Amino acid sequence: MGLIPDDWLLEPHRSAGFLKHEVIAHVEKASHIHHTEHLFFKVPSRYALLNITDRVEEVLKRSGVTDGLAFVSAMHITAGIYVNDAESGLLHDIARWIENLAPFGEDYQHHQTGEDNGDAHLKSFLTNHSLTAPITQGRLDFGTWQQIFYAEFDGKREKRVLVKTLGV
Amino acid sequence: MGLIPDDWLLEPHRSAGFLKHEVIAHVEKASHIHHTEHLFFKVPSRYALLNITDRVEEVLKRSGVTDGLAFVSAMHITAGIYVNDAESGLLHDIARWIENLAPFGEDYQHHQTGEDNGDAHLKSFLTNHSLTAPITQGRLDFGTWQQIFYAEFDGKREKRVLVKTLGV
Amino acid sequence: MGLIPDDWLLEPHRSAGFLKHEVIAHVEKASHIHHTEHLFFKVPSRYALLNITDRVEEVLKRSGVTDGLAFVSAMHITAGIYVNDAESGLLHDIARWIENLAPFGEDYQHHQTGEDNGDAHLKSFLTNHSLTAPITQGRLDFGTWQQIFYAEFDGKREKRVLVKTLGV
Repeated sequence: MGLIPDDWLLEPHRSAGFLKHEVIAHVEKASHIHHTEHLFFKVPSRYALLNITDRVEEVLKRSGVTDGLAFVSAMHITAGIYVNDAESGLLHDIARWIENLAPFGEDYQHHQTGEDNGDAHLKSFLTNHSLTAPITQGRLDFGTWQQIFYAEFDGKREKRVLVKTLGV
Repeated sequence: MGLIPDDWLLEPHRSAGFLKHEVIAHVEKASHIHHTEHLFFKVPSRYALLNITDRVEEVLKRSGVTDGLAFVSAMHITAGIYVNDAESGLLHDIARWIENLAPFGEDYQHHQTGEDNGDAHLKSFLTNHSLTAPITQGRLDFGTWQQIFYAEFDGKREKRVLVKTLGV
Repeated sequence: MGLIPDDWLLEPHRSAGFLKHEVIAHVEKASHIHHTEHLFFKVPSRYALLNITDRVEEVLKRSGVTDGLAFVSAMHITAGIYVNDAESGLLHDIARWIENLAPFGEDYQHHQTGEDNGDAHLKSFLTNHSLTAPITQGRLDFGTWQQIFYAEFDGKREKRVLVKTLGV
């Protein structure tokens, strides 16, 4: 491998750029809510990057959780869930990058079972198959550009996404 | 980079393939269980992909948690935890893919410390080092093919996996 | 793709190297703490790998949580959070590896918006943008070498990291 470019700051010990902290919320309560839903998708194409932020926020509202965590997971191993920006050029870049690193149509041993979706299993390692998101004061505690995406790598069939909210 | 293949649906805004949601469970309770175990492994080979789903389910039973989350984490940075299918051809594909993207025996700077496992540290980025899994109605709330794997990238020594279940 | 090296143990079913389990803690309590902070960083370079383990432990102390989970997340989609070793040679290896797989300066479609940080969005897939860490007996329940890093891929501006601790 070559050298890294100049502009990398590598700090094994204390973090250089730290400015300050702010306490956003501190809640102590006895009663706890655990709310679980399955969301059903049938994507018309083989591959898709779908912005499901609104779907997750709908679950959040139905659950009544105001502080806690939302856990979002593909219930399949040929799909993934990730957080990133929704800019449409970037979606193309992400699709190309995933395809380049885990290409369709390689000679995967998995295909000896009759499947042709070996690439989809590997693609899910790049996006991760699930994520956890913070809930604070009744909302997803996200930065401006953070959006939740469902990454479909073997579509055209019914699939499920699990959303579980835990909190007060 | 080249173009992406035709069959990618990229949706920056609302998710196209959404069908419906189903509420699976809604629990409100005061009493809460936090249960933590370390699982000990000594893998006879340097590299391994081990299906530990049964081990995690055993912890789940011992903990008594019926709704919540299971957190599973390698306690080492030369190992990972991931969810995928257990089909044996696919395990070969995953091993080859990880090895290709983060190969053993490169000239890693980490090796100047006397170690030879630089590849193992990078491989753990591809699998992720931990995962969260949902528990609903006393079971791992998984799709048919989802299995939890321990990925060992520097074996032949005793290693630990942490499992923590939180819930009601 | 070529063959995998000899020394991979692939176990679709039961895990071969399992030795034993140890219950570390079992807590049942009614009262629950949810504590949320934002940490602010302004990194002087474009790229950085910053060890923020101490920062997260400071939040942990302020929160009073003794058993539960810490959720740590970049609030930007051009940064990531990961767990790995802090050895300085390894930090170079990680930086080179991330740069090789998601290089700066490619012809990304995202750049048609005027941005030049397409690589940063892809790099965040390799580190993951957030992590969950276990808290047991008042401390991060980590192995010897596990450290939490903030990976900055588009620095020189103020950015936030969210830390939420949940537990008893």
